[in-house]
Amino acid sequence: MNKITFRNIEREDLDDVFRLLQQLTEIDYSDMDLDECWTYFKSDSNNGTVGIYEDKIVAYGSIVIEHKIRGEKAGHIEDIVVDESVRGLNFGVKLIEELIKVAKYYNCYRVTLLCDESLSKFYEKNNLTQNGIAMKLRL
Amino acid sequence: MNKITFRNIEREDLDDVFRLLQQLTEIDYSDMDLDECWTYFKSDSNNGTVGIYEDKIVAYGSIVIEHKIRGEKAGHIEDIVVDESVRGLNFGVKLIEELIKVAKYYNCYRVTLLCDESLSKFYEKNNLTQNGIAMKLRL
Repeated sequence: MNKITFRNIEREDLDDVFRLLQQLTEIDYSDMDLDECWTYFKSDSNNGTVGIYEDKIVAYGSIVIEHKIRGEKAGHIEDIVVDESVRGLNFGVKLIEELIKVAKYYNCYRVTLLCDESLSKFYEKNNLTQNGIAMKLRL
Repeated sequence: MNKITFRNIEREDLDDVFRLLQQLTEIDYSDMDLDECWTYFKSDSNNGTVGIYEDKIVAYGSIVIEHKIRGEKAGHIEDIVVDESVRGLNFGVKLIEELIKVAKYYNCYRVTLLCDESLSKFYEKNNLTQNGIAMKLRL
């Protein structure tokens, strides 16, 4: 029974979500103030979603809702991760589907994300298509 | 004297900025409530910057500061436009430079943007490099 359910992230999920995100990029969060992270995260138009399977958080993703200057809203999908132990069960596709629902709820006119070229086939499963390139500067 | 100066966008600039943005994507804003646009725009961690040359607004760009779940901050550059009448004066490069300053002020660890492949050379002038692709879904 490959049933995954989704809900909004809660403060108590942070440890689990941080552990998942280490699979994406490792950072040292031992000294982090989780309350501070939570407060800042919630101050944005930022929607974090956790995926739960067999009572464990196994997936995380977020979508930032940007209010553009001409009144439109745009959704930016960020930080997509599915636990290594449950890959191949289509949970990633369902997670993106959830985030697109959030974008629709906020009446966004588009959803975008940056990814490695090798992931384009994965995101195409949710009908995203390549539209230009991503440019980056590390500060 | 090709001197351009920059400052934060103000409510009174909206008409000028909207006119500029029509050069990017035309939308019908005749029925728009500018006060509402302004209120929503300012509710985000959204920094709009106007470039002024010979007493006219000739450039606009914005950077959204995203508070990521693990406490980091990321800058998303959006809506870059330089008026057709003043292209070739290097104003675009200076505008991006200004937005990178904003990102540094907020202590962002990175700046990203989505663009057409043909613009990569332009953004490389500000030391951005291609890092993957942009995926998009119109809703």
